[in-house]
Amino acid sequence: MDTDFENLFDDGMLKLIDFSKHTSQFSPPISPNNPGDNLKLRPLNVNDYHKGYIGLLAKLTSTGDVTFDQFKKRFSQMKQCPNTYYIAVVEDLETNTIVATTTLVIEQKFIHECGIRGRIEDVVVCDTKRGKQLGKLMIGTMTALAEYLKVYKVSLECKDSLVPFYGQFGYKKEANNSNYLQLRL
Amino acid sequence: MDTDFENLFDDGMLKLIDFSKHTSQFSPPISPNNPGDNLKLRPLNVNDYHKGYIGLLAKLTSTGDVTFDQFKKRFSQMKQCPNTYYIAVVEDLETNTIVATTTLVIEQKFIHECGIRGRIEDVVVCDTKRGKQLGKLMIGTMTALAEYLKVYKVSLECKDSLVPFYGQFGYKKEANNSNYLQLRL
Repeated sequence: MDTDFENLFDDGMLKLIDFSKHTSQFSPPISPNNPGDNLKLRPLNVNDYHKGYIGLLAKLTSTGDVTFDQFKKRFSQMKQCPNTYYIAVVEDLETNTIVATTTLVIEQKFIHECGIRGRIEDVVVCDTKRGKQLGKLMIGTMTALAEYLKVYKVSLECKDSLVPFYGQFGYKKEANNSNYLQLRL
Repeated sequence: MDTDFENLFDDGMLKLIDFSKHTSQFSPPISPNNPGDNLKLRPLNVNDYHKGYIGLLAKLTSTGDVTFDQFKKRFSQMKQCPNTYYIAVVEDLETNTIVATTTLVIEQKFIHECGIRGRIEDVVVCDTKRGKQLGKLMIGTMTALAEYLKVYKVSLECKDSLVPFYGQFGYKKEANNSNYLQLRL
């Protein structure tokens, strides 16, 4: 049985967000509350470890072998940071597997009147569910959630090929200020 | 009197980091423990509000009017997120003012064996202290701190004009994967 404390964040939040700005982008129309036949969009739950969550992330990048204990520990560490980690998933209710996920992570600031900013991270859709607008649904949902949380901006880093995709949601390069630099350690 | 609980993070950490990779970059030689005459590099302290910390941030971007109560609340909220917010400052001990600051913020992940990644944010040096290598010192210090914390990567977003500056520390654009997109809300 799923209980609230096993969700990474309050399930009710996804029901409160205003998704209306994004509905025109979807054909056929889908939304966080109606993501498609036999699909459910909801917060990451600790039991999603058993529903293929790590395997889905492995489509994106290296995950290594993560045990359930390690997963629970990290899940708990994320929950110990109030109002910071918002990971949403889409579950295929026929197979009880996680088929899409996206993270919104919040950073607290002193700038902008002690404001908060959001970042979209770790966007993955399972190969077998491509063409069902789930990537767009996740980005639209997390963007609306960021707006609900009153961030002053949301940002993301992406490959060249994905710039047009994110552009649909208003994410854009700002003139002279769109460089993402990395140092791998 | 400054006490440990009034620091944003453990002061001892800055003494433990291995700064040796970066020392060759400085002429004259400076380091986190020896940042220059009458200067001290240390964690942000709650009393730095009274030492011009917000005014310094205002050189970077809009801060609005932040009261001491608002500052203390945000400081406390950051501390409630374990192992997440590392804000360092340089204090001018002659004038008791904060003359430089940089943030390292940590994001917990499930990917990379439940790894962590770091981001360099809000780098500011006071105009009157330019030419004293304080920007380089802050970036070197926070990069070394990120390595000490065992992040798998550190990243930052910057203007075109600053790409060469960060390049000195190994921060670089990766081929086809260096886009920083923003949505202001």
